[in-house]
Amino acid sequence: MLNQSTALDLMFQALADPSRRIMVERLARGPASVSELARPLTMSLPAVVQHLAVLEASGLVRSQKVGRVRTCRIEPKALRTAEQWIAARRTIWERRLDRLGDYLAAHPEEPKE
Amino acid sequence: MLNQSTALDLMFQALADPSRRIMVERLARGPASVSELARPLTMSLPAVVQHLAVLEASGLVRSQKVGRVRTCRIEPKALRTAEQWIAARRTIWERRLDRLGDYLAAHPEEPKE
Repeated sequence: MLNQSTALDLMFQALADPSRRIMVERLARGPASVSELARPLTMSLPAVVQHLAVLEASGLVRSQKVGRVRTCRIEPKALRTAEQWIAARRTIWERRLDRLGDYLAAHPEEPKE
Repeated sequence: MLNQSTALDLMFQALADPSRRIMVERLARGPASVSELARPLTMSLPAVVQHLAVLEASGLVRSQKVGRVRTCRIEPKALRTAEQWIAARRTIWERRLDRLGDYLAAHPEEPKE
């Protein structure tokens, strides 16, 4: 079991590559085989398999081999973990701005004499 | 001006490091000087400056030097861009599951004779 920090390292690292993001986009629309994942990408199948390994190590994607076909699926819980890390920080920042706004509204500038 | 894909590469890459995430967490609570950012981190000031450069190149953080103090701020718009990329893919997946549920509800299994 990975700790939360290592898991976030691997997930953000996995999302930091445009080809891997194309694979995630495809899998968001439903499960796909490795050759279906490879179709829109201009790279060799071994290169696709390597990118898939990075996605699987991060937990964002799972795959299962049945017979000769490996089917890949997205792991929405992992996507949500990465999303929530960012959302939580953005929210802290926005609440801070709201409090600042409230403070300024409650303490209007005194008119100068 | 970076295109959207390169911007996402740099943002997710920037978030893929635990020290840089600690810096983002600190900045979510308000602007900070470089030495304030360095305080919780067990690394040299030059190492902190290098991590800050990665965050700035990604657009997640901005800094401004006034006199001898460089003040760093979070860029909530950039955080939101990264967050929304993930959220959009998760939503596509969840809508797909909802449609599947609707289909199954509308087409109950015929009782076997």
